[in-house]
Amino acid sequence: MPTLYPVAGFRLGTASAGIKSPGRHDLVVMEITGDSACAAVFTKNAFCAAPVVVAREHLAMESPAYLLVNTGNANAGTGARGLRDARQCCEWLAARVGCPAAAVLPFSTGVIGEFLPVEKIREGLPAALASLSEDGWAAAAQGILTTDTVPKAASRNLQIGDRRVTVTGIAKGAGMIRPDMATMLAFVATDAALDSRSLQSCLQHAVAGSFNRITVDGDTSTNDACVLVATGASGLQCSADSDDRYDQVTRAVTGVCEELAQAIVRDGEGATKFVTVSVENGTTSDECLQVAYTIAHSPLVKTALFASDPNWGRILAAVGRAGLGSLDLGKVHIFLDEVCIVQQGERAAGYNESAGQRVMSRDAFTIRVVLGRGAVTERIWTCDLSYDYVRINAEYRT
Amino acid sequence: MPTLYPVAGFRLGTASAGIKSPGRHDLVVMEITGDSACAAVFTKNAFCAAPVVVAREHLAMESPAYLLVNTGNANAGTGARGLRDARQCCEWLAARVGCPAAAVLPFSTGVIGEFLPVEKIREGLPAALASLSEDGWAAAAQGILTTDTVPKAASRNLQIGDRRVTVTGIAKGAGMIRPDMATMLAFVATDAALDSRSLQSCLQHAVAGSFNRITVDGDTSTNDACVLVATGASGLQCSADSDDRYDQVTRAVTGVCEELAQAIVRDGEGATKFVTVSVENGTTSDECLQVAYTIAHSPLVKTALFASDPNWGRILAAVGRAGLGSLDLGKVHIFLDEVCIVQQGERAAGYNESAGQRVMSRDAFTIRVVLGRGAVTERIWTCDLSYDYVRINAEYRT
Repeated sequence: MPTLYPVAGFRLGTASAGIKSPGRHDLVVMEITGDSACAAVFTKNAFCAAPVVVAREHLAMESPAYLLVNTGNANAGTGARGLRDARQCCEWLAARVGCPAAAVLPFSTGVIGEFLPVEKIREGLPAALASLSEDGWAAAAQGILTTDTVPKAASRNLQIGDRRVTVTGIAKGAGMIRPDMATMLAFVATDAALDSRSLQSCLQHAVAGSFNRITVDGDTSTNDACVLVATGASGLQCSADSDDRYDQVTRAVTGVCEELAQAIVRDGEGATKFVTVSVENGTTSDECLQVAYTIAHSPLVKTALFASDPNWGRILAAVGRAGLGSLDLGKVHIFLDEVCIVQQGERAAGYNESAGQRVMSRDAFTIRVVLGRGAVTERIWTCDLSYDYVRINAEYRT
Repeated sequence: MPTLYPVAGFRLGTASAGIKSPGRHDLVVMEITGDSACAAVFTKNAFCAAPVVVAREHLAMESPAYLLVNTGNANAGTGARGLRDARQCCEWLAARVGCPAAAVLPFSTGVIGEFLPVEKIREGLPAALASLSEDGWAAAAQGILTTDTVPKAASRNLQIGDRRVTVTGIAKGAGMIRPDMATMLAFVATDAALDSRSLQSCLQHAVAGSFNRITVDGDTSTNDACVLVATGASGLQCSADSDDRYDQVTRAVTGVCEELAQAIVRDGEGATKFVTVSVENGTTSDECLQVAYTIAHSPLVKTALFASDPNWGRILAAVGRAGLGSLDLGKVHIFLDEVCIVQQGERAAGYNESAGQRVMSRDAFTIRVVLGRGAVTERIWTCDLSYDYVRINAEYRT
């Protein structure tokens, strides 16, 4: 676990409520002080979980004061009762702390299709609240995990003008989706001061370059959410309209999100390799991403990554079927790190497989595709497809 | 192997040219008599193989008299030399039989990125030509295989008016793509008489409902081609413009293509289950296919199929992320064969997992998704994702 700098004005408390397994931390409460701003983005899956629906509603009504997170149960596919359960938990927390129920945002992660054990959550609240602390990040990073094999946290401390500013975040997820283990959650806080609009714009920028640039298996969770809180306690004011300070804060937030997103891919189900796919010289961001995701989702490319097999035909075939209009393959080059494997749409002159295999045997490497059409570059992160991915997902519930 | 009825006017010859492995049939010549019409469809992958380029060129120049097929080498990713090699082989065959080189269409399947062993093909031609016979279907079905575990052939014999009409076809392929083993080829012939335009329309209809409705791993080959020949020897004339006879012939051709397409899925790499995905009550064909393919390509659904795990959350989450605008999940029902697992977007009342598991344990079953939006239905065929898929594709070249 890296050093996690506390963010003044943001406290986290964790408890064992017996939702997941006895003795494990599985309930987390986060407290946001009065003047903070809070921004959030949620899954675009039409099949979204009850807490996502309720969190969206509450955000529209009140400025959030508490985030309530449980693992072990996703409260997804639970219909009207799931919505009632999520609201009930918010009400119980609100009653204990004396705030409106709509100032509590609920988040759940875990098994789909089972009802939320609300009584366990109710009983766990006092312990979680009692442990609230600005130093609670590490315990909270543990308390939100499902089948992740490692906690995921990142933190930055930077000087902007005469102010010291902190950005700290935690995340969970071991795949873009596991509907059984409904997946990605991330909570990031900074003590910079941003108005709501600036904060939402900062979050969207950060997410676009991080969580929206990873894929393990191409699926999209029913419970995904990412929250960014700005407490303002550092005294650094910044706004999206004007200043260089906003850019610096946004870069720091993006950096934290990028670290968390990469940690999710590294912990991807069955993953043995961390692979960056960079698509360069495209005409638009969309077409670069189209090529990058076609490569990253191809089971044939992913199994070749697992086998450390520098199979340029599979990569080139994925580029070819990505649906780019009038793509001239004669202009396409492909590199594995420093090794050119495809030159002008054919096996590169002088390329030999042992050079490709040397790169592919690394734990982390980059597939770089140069399209030769324009000036735009996009980059995503992914992992391989191994026996263990099949094992984990074929045996998960049995 | 089913009974394969010969098609008058269409002869097939097979030889062992030593391209694939010693003694194995790997070279096939098909001869089309004078008055036949010939239609073809090819891969849409921008990275298409040399024989695909040459076959397209030749089709535009001459009416085809011979099809020349080799397995063991895809002649893909071979650049200018690959094109020269494909043309050279056509010229050699043309010189032997005394026809223009452009009346020969070349097809290759096998490993990508290696140059075609043209001398072996030249030396194999006399034996292939010597064995030309209307009874050559079964040998040819063997002679075009790569890593397929079984030959794929289908045949129909039907009475239309006072004529007896035959449709016979063969195919190879064990995945939508294997760029190493560049994949799907299908050759179908009938003794009905169709003009070129009618034949092309017949083929497109047949392919849309068969080869374009299967997926093993979502990839698209560099070498895919499907050819339909109409020799007219039965004396049955038919045209797309007018008659019921055209519809009957098209149904028979579609039926043969459907059988071949399903055989490819059943022989899918590592496949242990044959799964039909039927999406009903959509507003358009496109949106039904979008949902069907999102389900069929989801690694999480595919591993659940492998595990015989009736994981309704994974299927519903795939429906949810298929990108349908304003999808009301409250109207969605999902069935596994006769068992309703999701009712109005939630776990069906009275559903128990043992009922779902009973269906999932079958070798073949249907996932039926009712969208409740319109009147359109689409149906595709797919298979599961098993350890063996990873093994086959991770170990293929090592």
